[in-house]
Amino acid sequence: MKWATLDKEPCSVARTVAVIGDRWTLLILRDCFLRVRRFEAFQTRLGITRHLLADRLRKLVAFGVLERVAYQDSPKRYEYVLTERGLALHPVLMSIVHWGDVHMSDARGRPMLHEHKSCGHVFDPVMTCSVCGGRISARDVLTHDGPGLIRRAPRARRTPSSS
Amino acid sequence: MKWATLDKEPCSVARTVAVIGDRWTLLILRDCFLRVRRFEAFQTRLGITRHLLADRLRKLVAFGVLERVAYQDSPKRYEYVLTERGLALHPVLMSIVHWGDVHMSDARGRPMLHEHKSCGHVFDPVMTCSVCGGRISARDVLTHDGPGLIRRAPRARRTPSSS
Repeated sequence: MKWATLDKEPCSVARTVAVIGDRWTLLILRDCFLRVRRFEAFQTRLGITRHLLADRLRKLVAFGVLERVAYQDSPKRYEYVLTERGLALHPVLMSIVHWGDVHMSDARGRPMLHEHKSCGHVFDPVMTCSVCGGRISARDVLTHDGPGLIRRAPRARRTPSSS
Repeated sequence: MKWATLDKEPCSVARTVAVIGDRWTLLILRDCFLRVRRFEAFQTRLGITRHLLADRLRKLVAFGVLERVAYQDSPKRYEYVLTERGLALHPVLMSIVHWGDVHMSDARGRPMLHEHKSCGHVFDPVMTCSVCGGRISARDVLTHDGPGLIRRAPRARRTPSSS
């Protein structure tokens, strides 16, 4: 498995990791979901070099996750806005936030609370099944080879083992 | 924001990214959820150097995500097993898989299908609200500063903007 061709692997984790599998990229995306849009704002918040930030933003634009939108003419200036494809990464960020809230918080508690606008309550994200609506946990999922997998014969695997 | 102290930032994304914000770490975790446990198996599947793999596994053990368990005496050999803390990363991996399935698949379709053991159906993961059970989307969440945030005065922010 080569990093340069990770987005061509027959695996949706590898392909996604090709887009977001980088510490700064994930923190840039976090800021995007917090309405940060301008280069200088990202840079101030993250304290990374202009070169590194420009590279990560360019990559996110190339993958269709962010869109570069002009907000000023003469001189032309741009900001970075999440596309629909980018907004669809919200469950990834919410899962990451929640794991951090539960497993990495210190005695002060959670750094941020999330309110569900529809119901008005502070909530935790819960991963559920699109068919039955039941909660999904690691011990409750079987994986099968799908049509996009071309290198292995079909078989079922138990995921994960607890033996 | 410094990479070396990311796990001390008052932000659950930054703290989690300190653990999993690395391409190989995410692919190692994917393999863990597919029951891969042994050093040589990880190495064969990922094709990374022993040094890099050993470093990432050591880090995951140090953060309590994986446990090193002896499976053979003389010579002593170990395998790497997800802890409860590690199993709790399942929604992160499922969200990543799902985004890749929808946004990075080629014409052949999904490389892998997930079956919910409880209901027996192939499913998509759906992020829902722990209070009302409704679906969570990026446009339906407000963020508020929590008790663990120490650097900003309380205020509500709309997340994300679609203006």
